[in-house]
Amino acid sequence: MSSIYGTNLKISIFGQSHSPAIGVNIDGLPAGLKIDFNELQTFLNRRMPGVAAHSTKRKEPDVPEFLSGLVDNGGSADGSNTGITCGSPLAAIIRNTDTRSQDYEQLKDVPRPSHADYTAFVKYGESHDVRGGGSFSGRLTAPLCIAGGICLQLLKQKSIDITAHIYQIANVKDTPFDPVSIGEKEKGILKTADFPVIDKNAGELMLAIIEEAKQAGDSVGGIIECAATGLPAGIGDPMFDGMENRLSAIIFGIPAVKGIEFGNGFSAAELRGSQNNDSFIMSEGKIKTSTNRHGGILGGITSGMPMLFRVAIKPTPSISIEQGSVSLSRKEEVRLAITGRHDPCIVPRAVPCVEAAAAIAIYDALLASAR
Amino acid sequence: MSSIYGTNLKISIFGQSHSPAIGVNIDGLPAGLKIDFNELQTFLNRRMPGVAAHSTKRKEPDVPEFLSGLVDNGGSADGSNTGITCGSPLAAIIRNTDTRSQDYEQLKDVPRPSHADYTAFVKYGESHDVRGGGSFSGRLTAPLCIAGGICLQLLKQKSIDITAHIYQIANVKDTPFDPVSIGEKEKGILKTADFPVIDKNAGELMLAIIEEAKQAGDSVGGIIECAATGLPAGIGDPMFDGMENRLSAIIFGIPAVKGIEFGNGFSAAELRGSQNNDSFIMSEGKIKTSTNRHGGILGGITSGMPMLFRVAIKPTPSISIEQGSVSLSRKEEVRLAITGRHDPCIVPRAVPCVEAAAAIAIYDALLASAR
Amino acid sequence: MSSIYGTNLKISIFGQSHSPAIGVNIDGLPAGLKIDFNELQTFLNRRMPGVAAHSTKRKEPDVPEFLSGLVDNGGSADGSNTGITCGSPLAAIIRNTDTRSQDYEQLKDVPRPSHADYTAFVKYGESHDVRGGGSFSGRLTAPLCIAGGICLQLLKQKSIDITAHIYQIANVKDTPFDPVSIGEKEKGILKTADFPVIDKNAGELMLAIIEEAKQAGDSVGGIIECAATGLPAGIGDPMFDGMENRLSAIIFGIPAVKGIEFGNGFSAAELRGSQNNDSFIMSEGKIKTSTNRHGGILGGITSGMPMLFRVAIKPTPSISIEQGSVSLSRKEEVRLAITGRHDPCIVPRAVPCVEAAAAIAIYDALLASAR
Amino acid sequence: MSSIYGTNLKISIFGQSHSPAIGVNIDGLPAGLKIDFNELQTFLNRRMPGVAAHSTKRKEPDVPEFLSGLVDNGGSADGSNTGITCGSPLAAIIRNTDTRSQDYEQLKDVPRPSHADYTAFVKYGESHDVRGGGSFSGRLTAPLCIAGGICLQLLKQKSIDITAHIYQIANVKDTPFDPVSIGEKEKGILKTADFPVIDKNAGELMLAIIEEAKQAGDSVGGIIECAATGLPAGIGDPMFDGMENRLSAIIFGIPAVKGIEFGNGFSAAELRGSQNNDSFIMSEGKIKTSTNRHGGILGGITSGMPMLFRVAIKPTPSISIEQGSVSLSRKEEVRLAITGRHDPCIVPRAVPCVEAAAAIAIYDALLASAR
Repeated sequence: MSSIYGTNLKISIFGQSHSPAIGVNIDGLPAGLKIDFNELQTFLNRRMPGVAAHSTKRKEPDVPEFLSGLVDNGGSADGSNTGITCGSPLAAIIRNTDTRSQDYEQLKDVPRPSHADYTAFVKYGESHDVRGGGSFSGRLTAPLCIAGGICLQLLKQKSIDITAHIYQIANVKDTPFDPVSIGEKEKGILKTADFPVIDKNAGELMLAIIEEAKQAGDSVGGIIECAATGLPAGIGDPMFDGMENRLSAIIFGIPAVKGIEFGNGFSAAELRGSQNNDSFIMSEGKIKTSTNRHGGILGGITSGMPMLFRVAIKPTPSISIEQGSVSLSRKEEVRLAITGRHDPCIVPRAVPCVEAAAAIAIYDALLASAR
Repeated sequence: MSSIYGTNLKISIFGQSHSPAIGVNIDGLPAGLKIDFNELQTFLNRRMPGVAAHSTKRKEPDVPEFLSGLVDNGGSADGSNTGITCGSPLAAIIRNTDTRSQDYEQLKDVPRPSHADYTAFVKYGESHDVRGGGSFSGRLTAPLCIAGGICLQLLKQKSIDITAHIYQIANVKDTPFDPVSIGEKEKGILKTADFPVIDKNAGELMLAIIEEAKQAGDSVGGIIECAATGLPAGIGDPMFDGMENRLSAIIFGIPAVKGIEFGNGFSAAELRGSQNNDSFIMSEGKIKTSTNRHGGILGGITSGMPMLFRVAIKPTPSISIEQGSVSLSRKEEVRLAITGRHDPCIVPRAVPCVEAAAAIAIYDALLASAR
Repeated sequence: MSSIYGTNLKISIFGQSHSPAIGVNIDGLPAGLKIDFNELQTFLNRRMPGVAAHSTKRKEPDVPEFLSGLVDNGGSADGSNTGITCGSPLAAIIRNTDTRSQDYEQLKDVPRPSHADYTAFVKYGESHDVRGGGSFSGRLTAPLCIAGGICLQLLKQKSIDITAHIYQIANVKDTPFDPVSIGEKEKGILKTADFPVIDKNAGELMLAIIEEAKQAGDSVGGIIECAATGLPAGIGDPMFDGMENRLSAIIFGIPAVKGIEFGNGFSAAELRGSQNNDSFIMSEGKIKTSTNRHGGILGGITSGMPMLFRVAIKPTPSISIEQGSVSLSRKEEVRLAITGRHDPCIVPRAVPCVEAAAAIAIYDALLASAR
Repeated sequence: MSSIYGTNLKISIFGQSHSPAIGVNIDGLPAGLKIDFNELQTFLNRRMPGVAAHSTKRKEPDVPEFLSGLVDNGGSADGSNTGITCGSPLAAIIRNTDTRSQDYEQLKDVPRPSHADYTAFVKYGESHDVRGGGSFSGRLTAPLCIAGGICLQLLKQKSIDITAHIYQIANVKDTPFDPVSIGEKEKGILKTADFPVIDKNAGELMLAIIEEAKQAGDSVGGIIECAATGLPAGIGDPMFDGMENRLSAIIFGIPAVKGIEFGNGFSAAELRGSQNNDSFIMSEGKIKTSTNRHGGILGGITSGMPMLFRVAIKPTPSISIEQGSVSLSRKEEVRLAITGRHDPCIVPRAVPCVEAAAAIAIYDALLASAR
């Protein structure tokens, strides 16, 4: 697989940080579905570099060009900026323009600690593309967000919503989602916020911590919480095609993700069954659970309750503080100070990436369950 | 997929808790490899029900019958209890014998809280197999362990070891693995222990907590830590075929798993980059890292350091304490007291399952990297 | 893949000619579907060895044992010999009983001409299972027919029929199907015939030719024609998932198949477009084609006309006439006279195999199109 | 799947005849391999439209732009027009420029006989892209040829050659390949010929027949024969991953292919086993077969003899002779005269497509066998 994900909806991603372009081919989109390009661009802008203080200074417009998969090539008859899928694979690319490859010359010999430079060297040898992290760069989440942004729109057409927020930065925690009921207003605010948190005060503390780390030439990690609401019960499959398997298989495709948990997750370890189980109840004629410690998934299959999961993001490995590394050619230890442009904290920009990845996994599972 | 996992090595699992048999078809094993059946049985016995105080009383011998894939049907020329793979798919089954289906009659209408009964009903309708949890039962980890037990032997032949231990039960924690160096002796002890912990005192506290929960008709959850050592650098692939993706896609196939984290995992959220990065060093002429917060995986690819991950296991949902549920036919709330045979804590029996799942994922990744 | 076929319905086959058992795991069958075991057995008997003069003398009852995937393990409440699928993988096995492995001892060193003995030796080395052809044996079509026989029943429930007949043996041709309209009565006769041909006289000639070859210690090949009727238009996908791709990818899994053609197939090479095109017409309010040279598939997608294809079967390579081969150990040419039990013509027994393979491919494509 | 082919090497194709671009993403190319762009362009020119009398008048330069997957974006240090793969997915696109969409306006309501217009309408509804055949167009073989042209170079680096020729047009047959020994000189001539035939006289007859059909507003079909030489024995897998399965699964992705046969293929039906079997012989210390009726494949696995197969191509369905069709909107029969630009015979341009498809399938199988 490597760059391909999905069973009924398949995405195939390509590109390196400094290749002419990055892009995605999306295979399996049903025909006749409307895509709103403005809405997609608004979504893509949320992960765009260069827009916030806490982000890398690299500037890329990140406007996708659609190469295929649309009726009349995406030109809409009514003048609106929309397109209709035609059933053929939908491919879109983004040109790489603001690339400063010389920044990375030295890294060819000296791998950055906790980056993929060394493991890529072992795997691909001399000819791997080290510039900007090559295909391991966070930049490759842009095509993921194109595919995910489209899936988010298609899910919305089925009244399914996916919203994520910054749950934790360093030791500051945001207010978590209410597991049984996530407010519509809250979702709207989070989706338009520069720094998506529920608790503004916590958000300000987080921003201060990020700024502090930046000044120190350091970086910070965090946790993202994501909720999918409106999902019918019965989606997903047992064993290796459960929703947890499907989601984790794509979420770990986002660079820097080092953990995922569903519902109570790791904290369930400290609970008794009577504290972690969710009683079934009747609510307005429908079967629900009174609590939602299971995070909306039982036996890999959606229960109809909100699907909830959290994703651990490690601190950006690129820091300007000097670190120990080795020279691959000389086989000796050296000191390394990284000078390129980097986010002191990638958690904010990873929020839409998590939403995008979840949307792809959920839409794919929905297509599989339609049969 | 659903019951199928893998790309170069493919396992296909079948069976329900109370079907005539459960089993696995393993496709892609190279020819000419030796399997030691005694060693496999010793491994399978570690997850066998009915052997320990903390386990369900259901007794199944769990001796696999091999149906295909072996030279001379597994009869070895030298009298040893070994077999040689012939390159064809290796299938093995275990008969279900000690099944008490009547225990589950009432559950057909009243789903057990936090079990898959309800979601399976929504997905499969009236005709799903509710007996003993059907295909959602923990019993289906037996064929997973057959496949995994074989992969563990094949990995051992390449000097790769996978060992797991109980890291946490309720709020009691075991001593974690030393991330840079896991002792050979320690591994040996853990693999033969009834209750695999590094710290005996912690283990006794855990057993007391499990017994206490059992007496209360309740259950407890926990965390398993797993280490793979001896892996060369360069195994795994970027993006959707990284080691984290591969491992999580199979580990979530074990019932009751609700979270997974690699290296520092969720705790990385609280760290700065300078605290979470691992410097590269030269050690006896080889490139290593001084610390191992990355858990042996960078960019989805092994670094040559021990691979480390932790798995969250929820408390057994089957408890005898009365709980709230609903009647699916009458659409009304009812009270439910579960009376079947169940483990008050499945963490100990999940330890070999985690080792087995990891072995399958790692052996599959190794085959993919051989090209 | 190797032993696994399908995307939404997945079959995983295992076994060797002389292993303890052969079998199949079928993953993806919807829940709640009825399987008639008597009807399945009647179908399986059509490929059973030992029943006809033109068949091998090996006798196997070929009664499948169902291990999983059925409600109440297949015991039906109303006393009928039927079972209901429960949504979990359905596994079935057949024991190998009448195996005479000593017949094959010499073949370990001297590969049979035009068999897989030599290529299997190159691929798997000394440890490959040469007995009875191992996993390359025609015996492995029994589990294919279990899966296919079930799919044939499920397709029949949707008014889709698949019927094949012997189209050619040596230079004797049967009457071909009428491409636009295949008679119901004809289908019924073919499905119950010992030697399924439309033209009885041609059939008798064919039988005489087979008997003649048998007396000469030789064998003969032939062609099978298969028709699928009742298929709605719109099934299948473009490019690599067209009906031709899907069908050929499974049909070539039947040993001895060396060619496949759809509609006019190879004879289209000799035609002009005006002779090979099919005009669209209105027929009872529905869009049809006046002729059916396209064999019911356009652009990989069903047109609603009968799907028609032909499969070339090579003469059984096992003949008792002495042939030239080599000793693998001594690297020298030797003479070989094969003495085991073999069909002088496998075409009759391959007829239900082609129906079975087609049923699996078509049912899988139907499930994919349901979304 | 649909637009995705392969297991270890995966190609994902996108584009419609009149979309902004067509292209391919190639995932799984090892790192460090050299691609010669001039050689690739020479290969692509062989299928380019508008170059020969027998071809459509549509003119497209068909020069691929490489978007990713190359070291230094394909700029070679030594000034040669070559690039080195970096291990990341290699994506390439070709812009569509000379598109006359108005030619196809009427076809939206009136499907062309024996085209995919009608089946695409049934599958995708009103929003399918009918312009130029959409994604069903022969134009989509251009990205197939990019991927295949690269694989041909990589195979050549392993001394494996794939060469095809026009075997038959209407009732005129070329000299077939010698199954046991295909001349190097012959291969070279075929690869540079405008009209690749072995027998020049037959070629002239074929050209006359094509011209005649063209004058009549009609078209003709044909057969292509393809040989792969230099392949080691042992490549391919049993059952569903045999070389025949792998090749047919991609070859039927070329529009207008209606049949495929290996070795003696359909003509084996008329032979006895003693006439169709190939004796093993020792030749210069190596095991070979004296004849090659098996076409280089036994049990799905290569035998080391030349791999030989033939592909049936139907006559171009687009003809200017008036034909019967229906109005989809008015549900009535109409007459249709097609006026666009079309090849009177696509067999010559399909020759490199068959080579390309075969190269992809063989290279993928080689990667799978390397483990």
